[in-house]
Amino acid sequence: MRVKIAVTLGDPAGVGPELAARVCHDEEVLAQADIVIVGQKKLLAGGARAAGLSFPQVTLKECGPVARTDPGQPSAAGGAQAGAFIRQAALMCLSGEVQAMTTAPVSKEYLNLAGYRYAGHTEMLAELAGGAKAVMMMAGPLLKVSLLSTHVPLRRAEEFIRPENIDYTCRTTWQWLNRYWGYENPRLAVAAFNPHAGENGLLGREEQNLIRPAVEALAGEGMDIKGPLAADALFWRVLKYGEFDAVVCMYHDQGLIPFKMIHFEDGVNVSLGLPFIRTSPDHGTAFDLAGQGRADGGSMKAAVLLAAHMARRNPAGPR
Amino acid sequence: MRVKIAVTLGDPAGVGPELAARVCHDEEVLAQADIVIVGQKKLLAGGARAAGLSFPQVTLKECGPVARTDPGQPSAAGGAQAGAFIRQAALMCLSGEVQAMTTAPVSKEYLNLAGYRYAGHTEMLAELAGGAKAVMMMAGPLLKVSLLSTHVPLRRAEEFIRPENIDYTCRTTWQWLNRYWGYENPRLAVAAFNPHAGENGLLGREEQNLIRPAVEALAGEGMDIKGPLAADALFWRVLKYGEFDAVVCMYHDQGLIPFKMIHFEDGVNVSLGLPFIRTSPDHGTAFDLAGQGRADGGSMKAAVLLAAHMARRNPAGPR
Repeated sequence: MRVKIAVTLGDPAGVGPELAARVCHDEEVLAQADIVIVGQKKLLAGGARAAGLSFPQVTLKECGPVARTDPGQPSAAGGAQAGAFIRQAALMCLSGEVQAMTTAPVSKEYLNLAGYRYAGHTEMLAELAGGAKAVMMMAGPLLKVSLLSTHVPLRRAEEFIRPENIDYTCRTTWQWLNRYWGYENPRLAVAAFNPHAGENGLLGREEQNLIRPAVEALAGEGMDIKGPLAADALFWRVLKYGEFDAVVCMYHDQGLIPFKMIHFEDGVNVSLGLPFIRTSPDHGTAFDLAGQGRADGGSMKAAVLLAAHMARRNPAGPR
Repeated sequence: MRVKIAVTLGDPAGVGPELAARVCHDEEVLAQADIVIVGQKKLLAGGARAAGLSFPQVTLKECGPVARTDPGQPSAAGGAQAGAFIRQAALMCLSGEVQAMTTAPVSKEYLNLAGYRYAGHTEMLAELAGGAKAVMMMAGPLLKVSLLSTHVPLRRAEEFIRPENIDYTCRTTWQWLNRYWGYENPRLAVAAFNPHAGENGLLGREEQNLIRPAVEALAGEGMDIKGPLAADALFWRVLKYGEFDAVVCMYHDQGLIPFKMIHFEDGVNVSLGLPFIRTSPDHGTAFDLAGQGRADGGSMKAAVLLAAHMARRNPAGPR
């Protein structure tokens, strides 16, 4: 079945418009899905020009306040446009007008200046979706990691190591791998928090007290899940032996260090647990590169292709 | 110049004796250095037998208490032998009888049972060397990481992020790369502690308050050093562009996750800052594998070769 993917232009001062234009001209993408650009004609035209491409033949959903916004010149007006694009794309997902969305990068700072007071894209989407709790996953062909906590100081990461959070993150990861990726019985690993997985309590007790009981409860239900496993050897095992389909990580850098080492250029950010499919590239607005046609579109293209893959497996949407 | 390397047999119940026997028969090793086995003839003979090799033609420094110790059967008596081997090798380094040492794995637990009350090999060597402060480095051809803290619970890692510790770790890393590896002007990166390098204080202040000032002071002296750099992209930069010769890491797993991903099989542990050269393989005693000839000797061999390389560059020893 042919699916429709909403692609937002992101912050108009960033690389979003040119990356979106590239996607609209990409043969591989067009073979997989129909693209609906969510943004403004003028911005898409600017992106195409920057990328050295003609104006693409795609459906365009015009929305957001009219204002002059230029590449490399971030502003509150640009933040207001970016916020409106996200909102529109989420509504289209919820109504079934499209089967998934891929979002080009936005700036938290300029979204905030425009009155969108969220820690990021994901939090805004979660609210638009009625308060769903999202799990951040970074996905690539060789490694998929989902995170217990994301953008918090490392000294606060331990606050998120709670049985109910481990349980929710593992279940959500399992469900999405099962429903949208096609893993019939996903094999999950749960990384330890402390070095050497705490070495029987000598190097920390989070493993014994919090992680192990949560993992054992899930294994007791029949889930193929192992942990807590010492994080330093774990990612090597995934790469060398393909031992697990995804790794649930205890903090941001624990997952992102190994992930970016091998998927810096083709990694995709996926929001799990929302009532629709949402992917995004693994990089920011890159205001300093915008409008020059030099930005690498690999991650944005991978994000759209992954959204199409997931949508095809479940065209009716997650719920 | 031909150098002599002391190789300890490690815990007699572990894989040390068989890995040491392999090293003694390795053409590549023998081309680079003379090996002096520090241990007991009976244990080396057992190791050679387990590895399917003849008794090697090397110098043997007999030492340690006599006791029956068998592969796969750890005991306090084995711990006492392992401790004596380390002590003997350190004395040989200090006296100049050998130019470096490589230590086969020991068990902290059985060393402790035998009365050697240290957190590990490195701490014992530091004391034997008169209280020098050692820095743990993991070294491989593609990546070298040195650690601000090693075997402590992650929630305590921040206690080690102190300007004087950052300063000492960076200087020691620089000096050893310069003196023993042959990097004339080593390029160092210092990893950030928090996600996104703290994002200007939003995700933690260790970068602004502690790491950046220490790095800037060193850069001000002319050291080629950059940081704090967001850890997730940093290791990719090292791999892809070879941008840095070593990365100073804020905690154990930050360095060991990326290191083991690419050097699980050939990584070497190097103790920097001692008054002699000491390397060891990047794995433990593997009591469950011992005596079967199945243990992979790649890391042990790499450890001896690296010790020989370092010793040849400075046969008089570090001091």
